[in-house]
Amino acid sequence: MTNPYPGVSLVGTGQIPVQKRNPHSLREMGVMAMRRALEDAGVDAVEAVFVGNMLADELQGQKHIAALMASEAGLRGVEALDVEAATATGAAALRMAYFAVQSGSARVALALGVEKMSEGQPVHALAKALDAEREAPTGATLLSQNARMMQRYMDEFKVPVDAFDQFALIAHHNARTNPNALFRDKAVTIADVQSSRVIVPPLRLFDAAPICDGAAAVVLARTDEARAFSDHPVRVLSSHVATDRFRLEDRADPFELYAVQKSSLAALAAAGVTLADIDFFEAHDAFTIMTCLALEAVGFAMRGEGWRLAAEGQIALGGPLPISTLGGLKARGHPIGASAIYQTCEIVQQLTGRAGPNQIHGAECAMLLSVGGVASTAITHIFAV
Amino acid sequence: MTNPYPGVSLVGTGQIPVQKRNPHSLREMGVMAMRRALEDAGVDAVEAVFVGNMLADELQGQKHIAALMASEAGLRGVEALDVEAATATGAAALRMAYFAVQSGSARVALALGVEKMSEGQPVHALAKALDAEREAPTGATLLSQNARMMQRYMDEFKVPVDAFDQFALIAHHNARTNPNALFRDKAVTIADVQSSRVIVPPLRLFDAAPICDGAAAVVLARTDEARAFSDHPVRVLSSHVATDRFRLEDRADPFELYAVQKSSLAALAAAGVTLADIDFFEAHDAFTIMTCLALEAVGFAMRGEGWRLAAEGQIALGGPLPISTLGGLKARGHPIGASAIYQTCEIVQQLTGRAGPNQIHGAECAMLLSVGGVASTAITHIFAV
Repeated sequence: MTNPYPGVSLVGTGQIPVQKRNPHSLREMGVMAMRRALEDAGVDAVEAVFVGNMLADELQGQKHIAALMASEAGLRGVEALDVEAATATGAAALRMAYFAVQSGSARVALALGVEKMSEGQPVHALAKALDAEREAPTGATLLSQNARMMQRYMDEFKVPVDAFDQFALIAHHNARTNPNALFRDKAVTIADVQSSRVIVPPLRLFDAAPICDGAAAVVLARTDEARAFSDHPVRVLSSHVATDRFRLEDRADPFELYAVQKSSLAALAAAGVTLADIDFFEAHDAFTIMTCLALEAVGFAMRGEGWRLAAEGQIALGGPLPISTLGGLKARGHPIGASAIYQTCEIVQQLTGRAGPNQIHGAECAMLLSVGGVASTAITHIFAV
Repeated sequence: MTNPYPGVSLVGTGQIPVQKRNPHSLREMGVMAMRRALEDAGVDAVEAVFVGNMLADELQGQKHIAALMASEAGLRGVEALDVEAATATGAAALRMAYFAVQSGSARVALALGVEKMSEGQPVHALAKALDAEREAPTGATLLSQNARMMQRYMDEFKVPVDAFDQFALIAHHNARTNPNALFRDKAVTIADVQSSRVIVPPLRLFDAAPICDGAAAVVLARTDEARAFSDHPVRVLSSHVATDRFRLEDRADPFELYAVQKSSLAALAAAGVTLADIDFFEAHDAFTIMTCLALEAVGFAMRGEGWRLAAEGQIALGGPLPISTLGGLKARGHPIGASAIYQTCEIVQQLTGRAGPNQIHGAECAMLLSVGGVASTAITHIFAV
């Protein structure tokens, strides 16, 4: 049976630099990223806009953001909806835009991720990714839950905290040539990592991605029409969302990351590729332990050995499996709802030979993994030229 | 060219009674509605769950609700994403489930709407549907903006406030046989409406839908497989979202409701039907002025004359265009993110001859309109048997 669906391709990207505090408002940031993506695709309008934002309800007192953004961008009449999946929110927006095109509802759709964390209490707002009845009341945050996983991993597999150093070092190295990265001017040494402040033991400052402001957008079109918008479209081979038992406490095996396993396996199957075809991997490196566990759950490393890919340099630019090639969540920055859209933009840069000094030569296929909460949600997209 | 898409049908519904204060928690309410819908469709699981909820971030301190609900319902592994479009949120969840099936991503998907407004400050949280920078700081709320539209309408078209009485009366009459309605035991008289407290002049208590708790869910499947799940599937003929200039103040004509016009016209065209084919209309009767303006924007009434359809009884059960046939937002209740899903369940009841004493005989085609904010967003779905 032939596939009746049109297929979906990326035909435009727009980023604004990630900053500790962007002087513009949430809406201004979003509109700037949208305009850049529309300009890149050579269009004035789209049929649908999907916005990923996690924190504006608490931090800016704003809901109904997609309609607001569409209106502020001058796109009167367009479809506009908000989508959220905690820290995987950007990938959820990408999936909705994919749905709109793949279902025949829109010929051209835009996914925007936008987050302004420099206002209010972002750590408090982020904790809403956890169970408000059974986790948050114990004082649990994403930091404390990841610290807990990290300690258990170190105990279980007899791994010292230094085993995680290279995740941060490689990310910071990769960010240095990315003009949109938060830490692009920062030369980080192993001494910086090892002497960094312990936030929640054993988790150090360099084990966690920074709080920051950012916005990025991508334009999607039907694959059979993609060349009308772009000379270098990138195909979305597959998109898959999976969830796990919500609370870390309820999982028999805290290291399994079932949602990551399921979503990545299904995305590979739907794309018709194997792990060997993946030229680079945009990981959800919000925490070093999460990167480590995800590498294992996807199947890039054996159980208990994900850290080795960092320690042995395999995930560096010249290695067999480059990750976070333009800085990742750790060093490009992690403005929650925007992160996966930044990663999608970076994947387009890599797959179209426009990644500058960090170019992965001959890259043709990439995997993007986004993780919501403590891997309660995982969203995988696979792209190719 | 033949349509390559599978088509989408409703194959299961689940409601819990709307209450002023449901003794169960947000998650318990959601899981109950999900279980009832799954049971009605005769399935243990689905591939994807889309959750519409607007207020839990502020009222319950909970985000990431879809993954939580899926986990609490025992659906480990399933896709689960949250969607929001202010007061049109339930319809956005329905649209996402429609996308999932129509795009070939899922064979069976569930849309859940859930809202618990009996905790916290729901009026404050609802105001986040407006512009947080330029409307909310002036003290504007959905109540005050609708009151403003109502006053302008009364002035412009020389209509007294009593012209709106029948919207509430008809809704309350229709709710009396609906076991899931908030006001099912309430006999409301015209004297009750006319003597009701003025909340924001000229808007009276009976001109606004109540704050309440509720949850409802629907199961969707491919039309070509729908009879495997249900003996009486209902087809989703079309689904369309449109937006307008976000702020009421920025519109040249406050009575036009451009988003409603655009979304309803596009949905009719995509469904291949005309207004004459619509046997009943599930309106967004959160405010009497909004029902009146929507009747005009969709084309059921001439400009300035929407109120006549109520005053003349045309929208009553025996009239040519019944609306809010099981009580509507006004009398069944308006638990924000759940409302459009309740309406979808009620449409299924009507189109399958299971609406009890309120049955519209021979009903074959229905329109559902949901409005986000002050009609900044409009979502139209058309259904048929």
